[in-house]
Amino acid sequence: MQTVKLAFLGFGNVGRALARLLLAKEAQLLSQYQLAFRVTGIATGGHGIALDPNGLDLQKALRLAQAGDDLSELSTLGAPAIPMDLIQRCEADVLFENTPVNYETGQPALDHLRASLERGMHAITANKGPVVHGYRELTALAKKKGRRFLFESTVMDGAPIFSLFREALPGANLKRFRGVLNSTTNLILTRMETGESFEDAVRFAQSIGIAETDPSGDIDGWDAAVKVAALATVLMDTPLKPAAVDRSGIRAITSQDVTGALKDGERWKLVCSAERTPQGLKPGWLPNGYQ
Amino acid sequence: MQTVKLAFLGFGNVGRALARLLLAKEAQLLSQYQLAFRVTGIATGGHGIALDPNGLDLQKALRLAQAGDDLSELSTLGAPAIPMDLIQRCEADVLFENTPVNYETGQPALDHLRASLERGMHAITANKGPVVHGYRELTALAKKKGRRFLFESTVMDGAPIFSLFREALPGANLKRFRGVLNSTTNLILTRMETGESFEDAVRFAQSIGIAETDPSGDIDGWDAAVKVAALATVLMDTPLKPAAVDRSGIRAITSQDVTGALKDGERWKLVCSAERTPQGLKPGWLPNGYQ
Repeated sequence: MQTVKLAFLGFGNVGRALARLLLAKEAQLLSQYQLAFRVTGIATGGHGIALDPNGLDLQKALRLAQAGDDLSELSTLGAPAIPMDLIQRCEADVLFENTPVNYETGQPALDHLRASLERGMHAITANKGPVVHGYRELTALAKKKGRRFLFESTVMDGAPIFSLFREALPGANLKRFRGVLNSTTNLILTRMETGESFEDAVRFAQSIGIAETDPSGDIDGWDAAVKVAALATVLMDTPLKPAAVDRSGIRAITSQDVTGALKDGERWKLVCSAERTPQGLKPGWLPNGYQ
Repeated sequence: MQTVKLAFLGFGNVGRALARLLLAKEAQLLSQYQLAFRVTGIATGGHGIALDPNGLDLQKALRLAQAGDDLSELSTLGAPAIPMDLIQRCEADVLFENTPVNYETGQPALDHLRASLERGMHAITANKGPVVHGYRELTALAKKKGRRFLFESTVMDGAPIFSLFREALPGANLKRFRGVLNSTTNLILTRMETGESFEDAVRFAQSIGIAETDPSGDIDGWDAAVKVAALATVLMDTPLKPAAVDRSGIRAITSQDVTGALKDGERWKLVCSAERTPQGLKPGWLPNGYQ
């Protein structure tokens, strides 16, 4: 049996869902893969940092986080003041980075992932920022250190698109892709098909936790653009920054537009695409943006 | 650079397509994976067996096979009389088995794959028979020998379903599946939607090489049943023989049935499904057969 020590940077919806999944799969991981785990560190955004190299009580950490309480009380060796302290002191084998995305620079996640690889950890992120801003650097560093830089859930998180290509289609060359990669705008546009206004549809998406308080990352197309950039960077081996993606949001679309199109058997979608051409990568190989 | 020695059992459409793909990817395999290959043996169904431990001329083998000529002239050491001889003498690292399916027993492919694993080869098949009749045995034998038993193209051959679960979703438990797994019947039913008769649609499918001269394996649902059995056996860890699958073919469906359904916005499909229930595996978790 092997015990893997884990650390979390970020303990919001994504981090907590992963923690609950690990607890639910604990018996299966042990019986099927002879794998046990221990969580040695958790850094939250605004509720302290917990550090215990012998293993934190993950159930208790979840309860504290859910209640909005501070997690630093779980620390046995003095709570680290900043995430970088936790990385240096948590002695983890694997770092799960899941802090909010920074579309422009990928920071500070990029620095945190680099530091965890330098410390000999596998670095896993749910954050698209470091993928589009640091894929080649972090992949090369991981290789040098004999570790992995992984980021499966950053795009199409219910479907393992990156490991599909890496593990199952290693000889395939991706020429183009096209699809809906942002589910928030897809929900909003679908609700607008019933005549609901754009503003009401956004409010509904916020009420069920799909859209953020500031929904601009989704509705202005930034989330879609960064996903196009991530797919192109990783699967088409063509580094592409989000700002270079021909980007349209859905802010200007009215429910009249949407219901009118529906009458003609058409639907508005935020379509993401890219094509590799002899002239280089072309984000948008069919009428881009909406269709 | 590593040179991998390959042998083919079966050199029909599937084997020749693989050979052409290997030739087309030769440069990429070398530059991306430092892998070269050499084909040391090819056993055809009725046009002889070629054996050369130093490597056959694959282009020439393809030309001979395409022309319907005998391949044994390529043998440098005396052509093996039967495939089992080839397996014993070809000194390959990997055997590609792609002979026609035997739904009832999986033979003789099962014996050939077992023998190749015993000889220390990786055994790869495009044949569903040995998967449903020998998955556990061949997988255990491969493990014992430090080799792999692989069969990715047996089901949903354009999509890597088995390696998706094995490599990308190792902690996931498949509870149920549902879909169209046989493309021949799907083509026939689609053509019947235009009013074409069942017989004419079958003849068309034969004319483009999709349906076989004896199309009963597809139209009586055997191909679909063996695919259900393969998915259940491998992905749901529940051995299931094709005969145990609740099976319907499409032979009794008329173009009137199909066009009539279409008027009501419905379509006839040969739907494959299975669900894991507390009472065991249930092939067909929704109205089975057609819907």
